[in-house]
Amino acid sequence: MTGNVKKSARKLARKKIALTGSVNADGAPGIKAMAVEKREGMKTFWFASNVGSQRAAQYMANPRACLYFFDRIPYRGLILEGAMEVLTDEASRRLLWRRSMKCVYRNGRVDDPDYCVLRFIATHGRYYFMLETESFSVDD
Amino acid sequence: MTGNVKKSARKLARKKIALTGSVNADGAPGIKAMAVEKREGMKTFWFASNVGSQRAAQYMANPRACLYFFDRIPYRGLILEGAMEVLTDEASRRLLWRRSMKCVYRNGRVDDPDYCVLRFIATHGRYYFMLETESFSVDD
Repeated sequence: MTGNVKKSARKLARKKIALTGSVNADGAPGIKAMAVEKREGMKTFWFASNVGSQRAAQYMANPRACLYFFDRIPYRGLILEGAMEVLTDEASRRLLWRRSMKCVYRNGRVDDPDYCVLRFIATHGRYYFMLETESFSVDD
Repeated sequence: MTGNVKKSARKLARKKIALTGSVNADGAPGIKAMAVEKREGMKTFWFASNVGSQRAAQYMANPRACLYFFDRIPYRGLILEGAMEVLTDEASRRLLWRRSMKCVYRNGRVDDPDYCVLRFIATHGRYYFMLETESFSVDD
């Protein structure tokens, strides 16, 4: 990946909202906008979710996932492909927990049984700018 | 679907840009932002694309598709699930062709061999508002 493309891709990957892609049990694609709670470069992204959600169930059954970020004008897009893990261990829960999550989960605590963490790890990506596109591996 | 939800869902479905979801040959989900060229309610959506694109190849191999529209604050989301057809017949080409497409396709004409039309037909949908969600069938 050329230096300029990498810089632009990294900038897109810093957006607060990621479009997350999944494949459901029926083989159909799904998309949902999710707030990125924590990230490390273009490699690892963390989201807060619910154990009982369709989304978590989908990723537990099939971890294949993508994240997509884009600007409208001029059009730039970044797709990162990889896998999504559903984590409920204490360290992962504490990593993302913020006071404002109190009103999102039933018992309002970091040990809420419905609170889970989604961790996406990218293996490769593709960057689009206008009609051009460039694919690349995402290294650690 | 209640009247208010239907009204809000229809409003979201009128956005100019749709996030389109696909499943590639390898079973991985894909997402791309595309301009909606024409639509009929929440049932049928048309996009201009390229015969030689990864996207068209994916939908030819596996028509399972979704469209996603969303607002950030307050969060509202609409996913429409259905199938995407890749069309190259003259009527479909003429339906979407606009003068501004001249610079997008190599020979700049409605009969450009790389010009194709993607037509999405929804079967069902799900509307999200804050933490609430409602599923519905998409009728003709």
